[in-house]
Amino acid sequence: MIWRMHGLHLTADLRGCAPAQPLMADAAALRVHCLQAVAQAGLRAVGEVFHGFPAPGGVTGVVLLAESHLAVHTWPELGAVTLDVYVCNLHADNSARAAALLAALEAGFGAAHREHHRVVRGA
Amino acid sequence: MIWRMHGLHLTADLRGCAPAQPLMADAAALRVHCLQAVAQAGLRAVGEVFHGFPAPGGVTGVVLLAESHLAVHTWPELGAVTLDVYVCNLHADNSARAAALLAALEAGFGAAHREHHRVVRGA
Repeated sequence: MIWRMHGLHLTADLRGCAPAQPLMADAAALRVHCLQAVAQAGLRAVGEVFHGFPAPGGVTGVVLLAESHLAVHTWPELGAVTLDVYVCNLHADNSARAAALLAALEAGFGAAHREHHRVVRGA
Repeated sequence: MIWRMHGLHLTADLRGCAPAQPLMADAAALRVHCLQAVAQAGLRAVGEVFHGFPAPGGVTGVVLLAESHLAVHTWPELGAVTLDVYVCNLHADNSARAAALLAALEAGFGAAHREHHRVVRGA
């Protein structure tokens, strides 16, 4: 038997984000933003790690989800952010929650330009 | 000016992995496997988090890299694993290191079937 997982991996690559906003360089602020977005999307966090880099001071962070993960990387020196939301759809269709989570994460950055990709995994 | 980051995101979705092997359900073993693969690929870990789920007991884990991140999810009940390796190429071309890291991660699982995707990000 070939299993079908129909995982959905959404990415957003943002440009034109205001470099001085707290989410670009403050790991604690970015962590709160991510965890709030996860909860509001109806997904479940099971772990997380955030790391702030020395000047120019981007942040890298991940929230592990019961449904897979989200990841965020910021480059304040470029006004750039990349976002990943990956959900498995094994026990429920989490596609709408994934899209809502990505939209909520994006909304925090006020990007001028956005590029999206969508990969179906384990199809 | 439009910046070009040329980030490279590689994914591998594995099927037909032996469910009883330690990497499928032992978070500590999977963590060691990932950190060794990162070091061997010449990339730099700056943080990590691994989470083991209750029975049937998959593991979710992430290693934050100075160059972005890797993520792994296992489903022993399906003999399935998904892998992500994402590197930015801002200060150096890390594409070959990313491919080497993904190959090393994959090699641990002995999958019967593999499906790959490659996304260029911030191009």
